[in-house]
Amino acid sequence: MRRVELTVAYDGTNYAGWQVQDNALTVEEVLNRALKELTGEEIAVTGASRTDAGVHARGNLAVFDTASPIPPEKFARALSARLPKDICVVSSREVPEDYHPRRVKTRKTYEYRILNSRTPDPLRRLYTWHRYEPLDVTRMQQAAAYLVGEHDFASFCSPHTQAKTTVRTIHALTVERADDEIRLRVTGNGFLYNMVRIIAGTLAEVGRGQTAPEKIPEILAACDREASGPTAPPQGLTLIAITPEADDPENTEK
Amino acid sequence: MRRVELTVAYDGTNYAGWQVQDNALTVEEVLNRALKELTGEEIAVTGASRTDAGVHARGNLAVFDTASPIPPEKFARALSARLPKDICVVSSREVPEDYHPRRVKTRKTYEYRILNSRTPDPLRRLYTWHRYEPLDVTRMQQAAAYLVGEHDFASFCSPHTQAKTTVRTIHALTVERADDEIRLRVTGNGFLYNMVRIIAGTLAEVGRGQTAPEKIPEILAACDREASGPTAPPQGLTLIAITPEADDPENTEK
Repeated sequence: MRRVELTVAYDGTNYAGWQVQDNALTVEEVLNRALKELTGEEIAVTGASRTDAGVHARGNLAVFDTASPIPPEKFARALSARLPKDICVVSSREVPEDYHPRRVKTRKTYEYRILNSRTPDPLRRLYTWHRYEPLDVTRMQQAAAYLVGEHDFASFCSPHTQAKTTVRTIHALTVERADDEIRLRVTGNGFLYNMVRIIAGTLAEVGRGQTAPEKIPEILAACDREASGPTAPPQGLTLIAITPEADDPENTEK
Repeated sequence: MRRVELTVAYDGTNYAGWQVQDNALTVEEVLNRALKELTGEEIAVTGASRTDAGVHARGNLAVFDTASPIPPEKFARALSARLPKDICVVSSREVPEDYHPRRVKTRKTYEYRILNSRTPDPLRRLYTWHRYEPLDVTRMQQAAAYLVGEHDFASFCSPHTQAKTTVRTIHALTVERADDEIRLRVTGNGFLYNMVRIIAGTLAEVGRGQTAPEKIPEILAACDREASGPTAPPQGLTLIAITPEADDPENTEK
């Protein structure tokens, strides 16, 4: 037996998120099926990030154990040929057999795209949040700066969280305009349930003048979901990459 | 009665093209239905460009006559509210009652997007043509230069054309790399059936080293569809805009 890690990209539009559930198709389930078709084994992958319904990924990670003679790096192509076009295994590699993608210290990077234009765009409707009111990027950048660092993000977390602690570290949070889009990029050591979408919703409130950038510290201090802005819709969000916490020699939470 | 022009954007993925046909849903049909719902009138719009199945648009034009009291510029919003999210009327305005969008001299601009990357991208699968072999943009630019100007484009036209002449003028044709995408932009006074897609397919052959850039004049001179490259798939193509031929005081073909 050996353990193989997959880097998976997908368009979340047609899936009820990552995690297997009854009565709804998920990315995990489609991967498990393709693995069974390929190897003949009953395989249940373990994902690094359980993205929500409608959320996309360029670099989610999944591991599984297999007795298959297929070389680990060949799984990417062999699986992609058996997957629908909205899921692609970008690469595959062997990892140590005690490696578990949710127990390793990593940095995750997400992107949130806001289409800030007078009219909606049918060609980007599945990948952006359309806001027609002009959003002030400078104000959003000022607000974003307050969120960088280690904070209790309880105000930026769905009350449905099962996390033991709501303290997280954001390493970087940038807000940039590219033509009629505003793109948020956030890198952190882990994200609470809906955290990036609540950050996006709150920064949009700042951008349209509804909330002052200087109010962010108060919102953080409140530790109350009611203090922050709305949860931005899922289709604007893409999990870009999950990378090992390079500067930590231990690199596990065990 | 007055004549109203609509500027229409759509994602062509789920449509059998623009033009009404039996047993398949088209953009034109969906627009006609929304107009009936809005005005109570049986309206059949006339489109400026009959895009193919799977081809997208940011600025196709359609005109219709109506006795409705709705102000012409209000049709955009009122219609968009009645349309599925993959079709949007970007703007609307009154036009002279003898104005016909296919009888006026215009410039059309199309964009063709090639995703030139080792692995496919599920998030761009509906809007790009994926080519994994490295394409040389400089060679593609050299080839493109030969196509600019007035030429007989019979070699770049589906044999199924009904056009009286295959002579057309390309005003500009640019090829640019943006990260892992290669974008072709072409502006001309009119395009033959499949012309932009055959240009894209031929330039891709040049880009991967299969055809020399200097062979383009020969390909043009052959006036034979067999001389050029393959027809690139529809999903990479977007009709960007149709604008009046400004420097022509007559501005009609009548």
